Amino acid sequence: MVRIAVLGATGYSAKELIRLLLAHPQAQITALTTRQTDEPRLGDVHPALRGRLDLRLENLDAAEVAKRADCVFCCLPHAASAEVIKDLLAAGSRVVDFSADYRLNDPNVYRQWYDHEHPDPDRMAGTVYGLPELYREQIPPAQLVANPGCYPTSAILPLAPLLHEGLVSPDGIIIDSKSGVSGAGRTPKLNFHFPECNESFAAYGVGTHRHTPEIDQILSDRAGAPTEVIFTPHLVPMDRGILTTTYSTPLKDVDAAAVLDLLRWRYADEPFVRVVDNLPTTKDVTGTNYCDITARVVRGRVITVSVIDNLIKGAAGAAVQNFNLMYGFDETTALT
Amino acid sequence: MVRIAVLGATGYSAKELIRLLLAHPQAQITALTTRQTDEPRLGDVHPALRGRLDLRLENLDAAEVAKRADCVFCCLPHAASAEVIKDLLAAGSRVVDFSADYRLNDPNVYRQWYDHEHPDPDRMAGTVYGLPELYREQIPPAQLVANPGCYPTSAILPLAPLLHEGLVSPDGIIIDSKSGVSGAGRTPKLNFHFPECNESFAAYGVGTHRHTPEIDQILSDRAGAPTEVIFTPHLVPMDRGILTTTYSTPLKDVDAAAVLDLLRWRYADEPFVRVVDNLPTTKDVTGTNYCDITARVVRGRVITVSVIDNLIKGAAGAAVQNFNLMYGFDETTALT
Amino acid sequence: MVRIAVLGATGYSAKELIRLLLAHPQAQITALTTRQTDEPRLGDVHPALRGRLDLRLENLDAAEVAKRADCVFCCLPHAASAEVIKDLLAAGSRVVDFSADYRLNDPNVYRQWYDHEHPDPDRMAGTVYGLPELYREQIPPAQLVANPGCYPTSAILPLAPLLHEGLVSPDGIIIDSKSGVSGAGRTPKLNFHFPECNESFAAYGVGTHRHTPEIDQILSDRAGAPTEVIFTPHLVPMDRGILTTTYSTPLKDVDAAAVLDLLRWRYADEPFVRVVDNLPTTKDVTGTNYCDITARVVRGRVITVSVIDNLIKGAAGAAVQNFNLMYGFDETTALT
Amino acid sequence: MVRIAVLGATGYSAKELIRLLLAHPQAQITALTTRQTDEPRLGDVHPALRGRLDLRLENLDAAEVAKRADCVFCCLPHAASAEVIKDLLAAGSRVVDFSADYRLNDPNVYRQWYDHEHPDPDRMAGTVYGLPELYREQIPPAQLVANPGCYPTSAILPLAPLLHEGLVSPDGIIIDSKSGVSGAGRTPKLNFHFPECNESFAAYGVGTHRHTPEIDQILSDRAGAPTEVIFTPHLVPMDRGILTTTYSTPLKDVDAAAVLDLLRWRYADEPFVRVVDNLPTTKDVTGTNYCDITARVVRGRVITVSVIDNLIKGAAGAAVQNFNLMYGFDETTALT
Repeated sequence: MVRIAVLGATGYSAKELIRLLLAHPQAQITALTTRQTDEPRLGDVHPALRGRLDLRLENLDAAEVAKRADCVFCCLPHAASAEVIKDLLAAGSRVVDFSADYRLNDPNVYRQWYDHEHPDPDRMAGTVYGLPELYREQIPPAQLVANPGCYPTSAILPLAPLLHEGLVSPDGIIIDSKSGVSGAGRTPKLNFHFPECNESFAAYGVGTHRHTPEIDQILSDRAGAPTEVIFTPHLVPMDRGILTTTYSTPLKDVDAAAVLDLLRWRYADEPFVRVVDNLPTTKDVTGTNYCDITARVVRGRVITVSVIDNLIKGAAGAAVQNFNLMYGFDETTALT
Repeated sequence: MVRIAVLGATGYSAKELIRLLLAHPQAQITALTTRQTDEPRLGDVHPALRGRLDLRLENLDAAEVAKRADCVFCCLPHAASAEVIKDLLAAGSRVVDFSADYRLNDPNVYRQWYDHEHPDPDRMAGTVYGLPELYREQIPPAQLVANPGCYPTSAILPLAPLLHEGLVSPDGIIIDSKSGVSGAGRTPKLNFHFPECNESFAAYGVGTHRHTPEIDQILSDRAGAPTEVIFTPHLVPMDRGILTTTYSTPLKDVDAAAVLDLLRWRYADEPFVRVVDNLPTTKDVTGTNYCDITARVVRGRVITVSVIDNLIKGAAGAAVQNFNLMYGFDETTALT
Repeated sequence: MVRIAVLGATGYSAKELIRLLLAHPQAQITALTTRQTDEPRLGDVHPALRGRLDLRLENLDAAEVAKRADCVFCCLPHAASAEVIKDLLAAGSRVVDFSADYRLNDPNVYRQWYDHEHPDPDRMAGTVYGLPELYREQIPPAQLVANPGCYPTSAILPLAPLLHEGLVSPDGIIIDSKSGVSGAGRTPKLNFHFPECNESFAAYGVGTHRHTPEIDQILSDRAGAPTEVIFTPHLVPMDRGILTTTYSTPLKDVDAAAVLDLLRWRYADEPFVRVVDNLPTTKDVTGTNYCDITARVVRGRVITVSVIDNLIKGAAGAAVQNFNLMYGFDETTALT
Repeated sequence: MVRIAVLGATGYSAKELIRLLLAHPQAQITALTTRQTDEPRLGDVHPALRGRLDLRLENLDAAEVAKRADCVFCCLPHAASAEVIKDLLAAGSRVVDFSADYRLNDPNVYRQWYDHEHPDPDRMAGTVYGLPELYREQIPPAQLVANPGCYPTSAILPLAPLLHEGLVSPDGIIIDSKSGVSGAGRTPKLNFHFPECNESFAAYGVGTHRHTPEIDQILSDRAGAPTEVIFTPHLVPMDRGILTTTYSTPLKDVDAAAVLDLLRWRYADEPFVRVVDNLPTTKDVTGTNYCDITARVVRGRVITVSVIDNLIKGAAGAAVQNFNLMYGFDETTALT
């Protein structure tokens, strides 16, 4: 039984994580933290979890967390996350980090996009990017795993094989993504006030979204050449789900069948990637750790459409998948 | 042309009001106010109104408002509203008040439900309750009109005739109401954060909602006997619309047809009440000033179902209807 | 390992059931049926289940079903259900029936509300009503269990203890229920066409809904006196969830605390009933088998508010709970 | 006063059109048609219009329509539309056609995309494409106006000026569009059944949507060179609104300000195009005839984001705008 701490347990990703871990036969949640000082009970913060786990959210420091838990899931905001993870690692904890702090390799890129000096720059390049479909072999021995961003997961899974096999060009890739509102977090803001975003659809962060360099880094790694993706996120009036439409230029004469064949071959053994012929909807994967992908070729352009649940495969599910790999459990435990 | 000021122009009711008044041939909006100090342009506060009216929201005092406008629509919160209205009336302005400040007649009831000493208690009992279907004749000469609450409008219109004609008992009336989220206002709060209230349905304010004494006061007036309604509001994951289901005990042997006949007779000349045979939906009245009503008799109980758009017939539309009556314009101007 | 057949596997309840059973360690789905003739693959009917279970939906007769499975979950429409269940029982199958066919005891009541002569009237009165919180001890030995209706579950759980203990009167109970659209089934109809029911709220079946006699029968049994409830269902623009508000007249001088105490005492050992102080929302129980209940006393009336997921506690989850009891498994298996 | 007939009055566009025309001081609706034979009353087909217009939907032939009305709005499906329009024009009626029948110039392109032989091919090339912002001067004298498609309007308005001024290349334009569900019409289908498409987001018609050649034709005309756009529509779980994101390659060294300047210059005098600095949302234009547009330049690509209400500027509003131009009324009559 692995003793688990969840840091920053008030948000949506943490809630999903706790829900998943409650069904995990080898996990025992022993600590939940918050930076609030009133130490609320879990059931008061997340009414859906009432009666499921009798714990309070406590304002604990890293030393106390390291004493109480073997494995720490860190759901803190970026920068705050690296500050505490440094100490947790020093104290011997194993950590899955939900923030962007250890996803990027280059402190300069981090400074540029996150407008912040990284608190632990030396560890950035060496930390595994916890997308098992691409970097599975590096996860079991890792003390720290950087859990991927939600948009990057939805964009990288369809594009990485096409780039790696040279089927499409690394130049001029367009990634048009659409996400449910839970991706914006749980802090009330006017943009996410129900009567503002309900029955409305909007683009946001055009050209400035922080997942851009993360996608570039991983796709460049797989392509063996630098990519500069055009990434445009949009907000969909629904709770959860991401659908990503990508447009890329083929380097070979391919049709949809050829692209689908490549994706099927690449992901044949993956438990959580389903390559499908139909156009998948976000509802096909709601509440699951699946990424469904399809492809088309239209007027000489390769189009992929992929869907994930942003809170599961895009956050908590991926974290449990990484946890399973880190501890040698069946990779699908608590995920189906 | 009547010069119009809208006080507290940042909210949803004010936005609807401005939109309606822009199409009103005898109204000219000359002042918009906010208690914010940055004096934003209307189009920045309400992007839907961009390019429609070139005004800033200003932080004006009552004297300045009275100079700039003939008629003032006050969309301020309760208590704040009465404070400024006192001065506006003294300066000769005519006022339609969206707040609850002048709806109740009794300062003690106000204190009990609003937890506040009324700033202008002497004027309460003499102010007309601006529901034209009940008090039309008192509106034209009024200097001040108290615009009705949204829930009260939806509950009073079906029940008032039944009580007035002695068809149902004033005792034991149950009013089970359901409202879209815009009724909660525009201030971001966790309860109205999209991922919290979307795909969810909830009761709130059970036994404590401030519209209870307002409904009691008007129904008691129509019944000629005191009522003590049980009023339970619920939150529907949609932008706008109220549906109210009422349960009352008949004092005569009636069937649905008899109840419908009474309602049809009562509202035969009303431009904004439609008595219908079918069960109306909130969408039937979205964006309109209509109240659609039907009735059934089930196991010896009279059930009414009524629908309004909470922002139109429940707020801005009713205000324009009152304005039309106050100034002698056709009552339906700018409302169909 | 119990071999399972699901009859009528195209609908939403069947989909949820299959999803739950796939995580059940003692269940193996061996047959899925449809009355369609093209024998589609499960993943084509329910894309969310693609890759989860490699079965086709077949057009099987009762004899073949009885050969392939030990336990049959019947998700057929009423009347059709009883026709096939007669044969399944004769062939020795154990059955959980999702339809209303064996919920009512009286063939005359069935004929009156369902407008159909019951195909198997003699078995009606003897069939257990599968609400474990009320009839747990009758479920393990049963060959046939009638799975409760979704609205009845939400209404009976809060009211049954109050009636059984004589805390409220069996007369004049009002049940105002609100349900998500999945309760209406999967057949496209104009009423449930997205642009019709989205952003709209409606009452339906006022005084005529078929769950009325089911609620009456069970509440009368618990009260020891006949009830004639006024039941009004409403349609909420959301996928799933039922919230039921009940109004009843206390027979004793009680406050909310006393009602909550009674409910807490009654359900202390129930794994799936949570009596809460706050007003629960449907989202608190989405995707779970919980029923959350609270109570208030307002102006001399007892009000209860209860929430369930109509597809889980209101259908598939209750069925799995019954299955667990029938086969002696832990009652919560595959349900948390 | 112009006498108006609306053919095919059961759908959403017709409903919006009737609503707009009821507020038009120079329009009088004198005939509504349907191919149904029961001749329902308007209020039974569209409950929102109950009491607004006392007409039945009748099964009328072209001759009778031409007798009853001066101007005919044809909301019939493609092919059916051209069949009746031929006769209406022969009888002297003026016509605004909502279908695609007279939008394309080339019968071969029509046959290829609509899989149907055009019933009136000779009139195709000569019919004006009723987008006033591009072809205003051709509309007043026209007997027949082809009302533009919803997606094309949202894509052409931002792109046409950029192509016409040579600011972007006609090659490789990507148009990623997102539409509310009302765009799919009012016929119930599983895809648009509430529990299927609610809380879900999907791409559809990738590479095959019939608006593709319409966009190509108009953009090619403006660019003076053939375009082959990649057009991908998506379905958003909301009633109405289209947001279109376009990606094109600049031919000059431009920044966002330069693109916005061009758009502002081009649309300076347009009453229904608002070029904005912020990223517009579909809600900014809901219920209005506006198209809001902005632009960005990201990593060497021009991105435009534009929003319309698909039922107003994308259908009924554009039709009224065309009607106003055809009859010499103020272009904005009944539209603000």
